[in-house]
Amino acid sequence: MNTEELIFYHSPKTRSSCVLALLEELDAPYALRDLNFRIGAQRLPDYLAINPMGKVPAIVHNGALVTELPSIFIYLADAFQKKNLAPPIGDALRGPYLRWLVFYGAAFEPAALDSLTKRAPPPRGMNPYGDFDTTLKTLESQLAGRVYLLGERFTAADVLWGMALRMLMGFGALPATPVLKDYAARVCARPSVARVDQTDGQLLKIHEAMAARD
Amino acid sequence: MNTEELIFYHSPKTRSSCVLALLEELDAPYALRDLNFRIGAQRLPDYLAINPMGKVPAIVHNGALVTELPSIFIYLADAFQKKNLAPPIGDALRGPYLRWLVFYGAAFEPAALDSLTKRAPPPRGMNPYGDFDTTLKTLESQLAGRVYLLGERFTAADVLWGMALRMLMGFGALPATPVLKDYAARVCARPSVARVDQTDGQLLKIHEAMAARD
Repeated sequence: MNTEELIFYHSPKTRSSCVLALLEELDAPYALRDLNFRIGAQRLPDYLAINPMGKVPAIVHNGALVTELPSIFIYLADAFQKKNLAPPIGDALRGPYLRWLVFYGAAFEPAALDSLTKRAPPPRGMNPYGDFDTTLKTLESQLAGRVYLLGERFTAADVLWGMALRMLMGFGALPATPVLKDYAARVCARPSVARVDQTDGQLLKIHEAMAARD
Repeated sequence: MNTEELIFYHSPKTRSSCVLALLEELDAPYALRDLNFRIGAQRLPDYLAINPMGKVPAIVHNGALVTELPSIFIYLADAFQKKNLAPPIGDALRGPYLRWLVFYGAAFEPAALDSLTKRAPPPRGMNPYGDFDTTLKTLESQLAGRVYLLGERFTAADVLWGMALRMLMGFGALPATPVLKDYAARVCARPSVARVDQTDGQLLKIHEAMAARD
């Protein structure tokens, strides 16, 4: 596969840092496109022509756009199978793997952000998560007593959850309970995450230098 | 496959009706468990022991729980491949297929429900969708000029979007624009949807009869 076939749209220290960690884990060749949020690069016409939502992460693989954190994870871990980070179709863990990846975007993050910003949850019945405490407890029950989200086996879902929990605890959007802290620390101790932090740090310095120059 | 291996937790005229339509399309054998929302069956201990989030849809397949509308769709359409409703891994449409399925839960429905309930969007930067108009326009641009979401090919993503758009327009959460109305009508004209509406109607009658008896 040619590097140019996978283009990754990224902004440092955002949701897309999770995808950067996954690409490192998968040892997938990619071309990074850095979007400088300080200058609103994600809402400039050239990027909106690629992703009209004006968000990262986004990837274009062989010409096809994929957006949304859980779908990018599902897509990439299946497309680059050699590292075995996705239970394949037919594997007993396939369903739980998909469940937890989508649960992050569809229920957990909305609950955490509503809690952080003190927005009342949507009316019950329409509400995708119910209440924050139940949502947090559902995750904690899954993690308690397990090395990784699905048990002994490390999967792409751990890359997402480990990185995202570190980020959300960093914002104060989640209580740093021992279960969450230990799990996030376990995932974020991986060399892939150290490389992400280094890359993100360098990109932020470039953004700062550009801002100082203007 | 034994019918009992796939258990489907459903409540009529809710998000889970989308899954019921998919099961019908896939011609998958399943055992339906009806949850009567009038009596709060989704929050009774026996159901919370299965899905601690107290929500539908949920499925248990060969003992494994799968929740969240997009993940259930991805899982089932891959598991029951004979109807060819999911572009397989490696297919050029695989990425867009995953993108649109997850986009529904992670961006579109939150935008529509915030708009319906007049909640201000989350602060920009954390916000998973940006603003309602952009989100709606992103979907409409994709649907305009296409028979189905991904073009000529009908996929499981159409089952979700067709059913969900009909539901959201029914709530007044979306403007019934010609593009949305025509697309939803095209999907909902399928025999699978007629069977869902019949089943849901019968289940609601049973719930009503039980309420009247109490």
